[in-house]
Amino acid sequence: MQQIVALVGGTGAEGSGLALRFAKAGLRVLIGSRNLEKAQAAAREIAAQTGNGEVTGHANPDAVSQAAIVILTVPLSAQVETLKSIRTHFKSGAILVDATVPLEIAIGGRVSRTVSLWDGSAAQQAARLAPPGVSVVAAFHLLGAEALKQLDRPVDCDALICGDNSDSKTAVSSLAKMIPGVRAIDAGPLENARYLENSAALLIALNLRYKVNHSGLRITGLGLGEVSP
Amino acid sequence: MQQIVALVGGTGAEGSGLALRFAKAGLRVLIGSRNLEKAQAAAREIAAQTGNGEVTGHANPDAVSQAAIVILTVPLSAQVETLKSIRTHFKSGAILVDATVPLEIAIGGRVSRTVSLWDGSAAQQAARLAPPGVSVVAAFHLLGAEALKQLDRPVDCDALICGDNSDSKTAVSSLAKMIPGVRAIDAGPLENARYLENSAALLIALNLRYKVNHSGLRITGLGLGEVSP
Repeated sequence: MQQIVALVGGTGAEGSGLALRFAKAGLRVLIGSRNLEKAQAAAREIAAQTGNGEVTGHANPDAVSQAAIVILTVPLSAQVETLKSIRTHFKSGAILVDATVPLEIAIGGRVSRTVSLWDGSAAQQAARLAPPGVSVVAAFHLLGAEALKQLDRPVDCDALICGDNSDSKTAVSSLAKMIPGVRAIDAGPLENARYLENSAALLIALNLRYKVNHSGLRITGLGLGEVSP
Repeated sequence: MQQIVALVGGTGAEGSGLALRFAKAGLRVLIGSRNLEKAQAAAREIAAQTGNGEVTGHANPDAVSQAAIVILTVPLSAQVETLKSIRTHFKSGAILVDATVPLEIAIGGRVSRTVSLWDGSAAQQAARLAPPGVSVVAAFHLLGAEALKQLDRPVDCDALICGDNSDSKTAVSSLAKMIPGVRAIDAGPLENARYLENSAALLIALNLRYKVNHSGLRITGLGLGEVSP
C-alpha cells in the first residue's frame, strides 16, 4: 500500500520543499494549510514539477485525518495553535513528525537564535499536545528549504532523528532516506530534539555569515559508510 | 617567533589530545595542570610521541603566564575555580580559548546532556571571569579526544569557532587548521558558543548510541571547498 504523508504547513518553504522531495519519490502527498485554496495551488505546482499526480491540497485537519505520517512544518509562533487545531483528527497509530525550530523571531528576535521552551524543545512541546496513541518524532530540521527545492541535486545533509519509539523512528528514517543524498541518523530520545533544533538555528546563522542559502551538516565517524547521492 | 600555546587542564583527554596535535605541528606547547608532576609527565610523553622537544609541563598559572593563546580544557565542574586560579596570570593581549562543554555529569547527570548556564554558555561564563584585555574565543569542543590522539590519521571534523573579536578568531582558526583534516568555520559571536557546546554533547550521545568513540561533524554548503586531509 502506498504511504500517505501529510505536510501540515505544507505551503511554507520547508513544508513545500519536503513535499516536493516526497512527491518525487513517488509517495502520495497531502499538502495541508489553514487556507484550502493555497494548499490546492501548492499541490498543483508540486504535481506539475514532479509528475506525481497524487499530490493534493487540503485544509490541515483533513490532511491529518488521511495520513500515516504527519509532518509539522510551521513557525514556532503557529505550532501550539496548529497542533490544537489538528489534534482530534489523527488516524489511530499515526506518527507526528515535528520539524519546528524554536527561532527567536517568534518573539520579534533573530532567526539565528533560539528561545528555550518550558518543555525542553519544540518537539517535546508537540508531544505534550499530541493526542494519546500518536508517536512523536523530531526530524527534518536540518534539511534546508533551498536545498530541498533543487530537485535535480542531492541534499548534502544528514537527517538527525529523535524519538522515544523505535518503530516510529525507523518509519521516519525510511522517509528521510528517500531524499537523495540524505542519510538518516538516530540521535536518541525525543528530549535530544533540542540538539537538532539548535543545530538548525546554527545552520541559519552560518547561512547568514557565509552568504549562502543551504548549508547542511554531516556526522562523521559513525561507521555508516560513504554518502551515496 | 614561535607561537606559544598553553593547555590548561592539559593532562586531561581533550587537553592532551590537542597538545599532541599542536606539538606535532611544531608549536611550543605548555601543558598546564594543578599538579606539576602530572603536567611534566604528560609533557614528556607528548614530546616523545611527536619528537617535539619544546613541550613542557607547568602548574596552570605558570603555563598561562607564558602563552599567547591559552586553551581551557577542563570539566564544567572545574571551569570557574580554574579560571579564578589563572585570571591574574594572563599575558597582556592573550587569547583565552574556552572548550568547556557544560555536560550534566557536572551535577551527577549524563554525559549526553547539557545544563543551561546563567550566562548562556560555558564560553560566556568564561568571558565573565576572564580579566580585562583578554579576548575569549570558543573552539575545539567538537574535536574528540580519541580522534585527536590518533596522530597518524586526519581528524574528520570541522572546528567551529565563536568569538566577538575577529583577530582573535583568525588566530584560533590558524591554530585549528594546523590539525590535519580540520577546517575552521566562523560560527559567529561568542553567544553562539551554546551551539558548539550542545553539538559536542550531541556527538557524545551519538558515540554512545553508535558504539564509536570519535564521531565528528562537517558543515556542508559553505563554499569552502573540499576537505584536504
